[in-house]
Amino acid sequence: MSTPKKLLITGAAGLVGSALRRYLRGRYQLRLLFHSNIPPVEPEDEVVVADLGDFETMLEAGAGVDAIAHLGIATTKPGYPNSRYTQMIMDTNIRGTYNIFESARINKIPKVVFASTNHVTGFYEKENQRSSPDLLVRPDSMYGVSKAFGEALGRYYHDQYGMSVYCLRIANFPNTDTVNTPYEPGRNRWLSARDMAELTACCLEAPHPQFGIIYGASKGGELKWDLSNAKELVGWEPQDRGAPDA
Amino acid sequence: MSTPKKLLITGAAGLVGSALRRYLRGRYQLRLLFHSNIPPVEPEDEVVVADLGDFETMLEAGAGVDAIAHLGIATTKPGYPNSRYTQMIMDTNIRGTYNIFESARINKIPKVVFASTNHVTGFYEKENQRSSPDLLVRPDSMYGVSKAFGEALGRYYHDQYGMSVYCLRIANFPNTDTVNTPYEPGRNRWLSARDMAELTACCLEAPHPQFGIIYGASKGGELKWDLSNAKELVGWEPQDRGAPDA
Repeated sequence: MSTPKKLLITGAAGLVGSALRRYLRGRYQLRLLFHSNIPPVEPEDEVVVADLGDFETMLEAGAGVDAIAHLGIATTKPGYPNSRYTQMIMDTNIRGTYNIFESARINKIPKVVFASTNHVTGFYEKENQRSSPDLLVRPDSMYGVSKAFGEALGRYYHDQYGMSVYCLRIANFPNTDTVNTPYEPGRNRWLSARDMAELTACCLEAPHPQFGIIYGASKGGELKWDLSNAKELVGWEPQDRGAPDA
Repeated sequence: MSTPKKLLITGAAGLVGSALRRYLRGRYQLRLLFHSNIPPVEPEDEVVVADLGDFETMLEAGAGVDAIAHLGIATTKPGYPNSRYTQMIMDTNIRGTYNIFESARINKIPKVVFASTNHVTGFYEKENQRSSPDLLVRPDSMYGVSKAFGEALGRYYHDQYGMSVYCLRIANFPNTDTVNTPYEPGRNRWLSARDMAELTACCLEAPHPQFGIIYGASKGGELKWDLSNAKELVGWEPQDRGAPDA
């Protein structure tokens, strides 16, 4: 299994997508899926503007790529009613994630990195329990439930179709590129942009096929989540560190 | 927590729904949700004809009941294209199940019994491994993935809202009421109508609040799935037995 050359990134305008664009450009040829907010790109980038819920366009978006980093999610704005937000979750996180895995299957794309979240097991944390990839899901929100769906779907596509699928339970992601500096809202629940990009690359270049659920957190995160499986599975360990707990 | 009096059954025309109607009528006052196929009912039954995907009607359907047995699923007919079937799964099994849990939350219905399936962990069986409620999901189909979503959703409603939620991983269900006779297609993967009805009643009458994932299988099923948690959690053990493996 050779290293992938062309990488489709969904949700490429988001915080995580912006980090991957910056850190992985040059390492892979990028095809970037944007929804409505289109940031400046580089001349060598390919750009697709579409909705994850649009099945036919997702099929086209996957044509000719070697791997997908599926980051696209429903985001909401202040004032959105709850029911409208759930509707968006259904359309984007659930139907959209199905569309992406189907695109991978039909386009014979062997590797998918799926942006999951620590909220899939958020209720352990609410009860002050450390969690691990081996525990049953305990989502703390509809967002977490929708990501639990994506993880189950990814497991199915791995088992049934032999795809490599990595579900990264991403912790609090910074909106700046600063590392090794205090990050107040999420002490010890922080993932640096550099650690995220390296984790993604490690998944893309790991032995194939594999399935993995990995907590994406920088140093300090091991207090809340078992991060140890990533080293064996894909050869990744966090390099950056959030602020210590007060 | 008193025993529920009025029970809403969704998917009441199906195989499992028909069994619950027959065995639980008289024990609970029944409100029956039918989609399009409406069988004969008894004068004391309440009837609602609607689509699980219709949120407003699901809210109304839950008004005044004490518990829900949510059995409704997308069924398909020979010749349906795959993509159309997946569309139905999204609408009925995913959005419909969300609608039912929301109806329970808004109507303050404390107990939901959710018809899940052994296909949530079907890949263990494909690899000749016995599975248990403590193992991570490994669905063997989109149907199984959709039920994994329902289980994650149920866990969230239990943790977040204090509902009692039981996810019954129902094995092969007979289309006759015959018990203790050979059932060729699903040896040792069979659930009798009587065992299913009694399991449902045990869940409805168990201490509250609880969350449980229970394999619904008659005797013999313990060869494939760990059935032992049901006795402690809700006081249920299967009474009937399928044919032994050849």
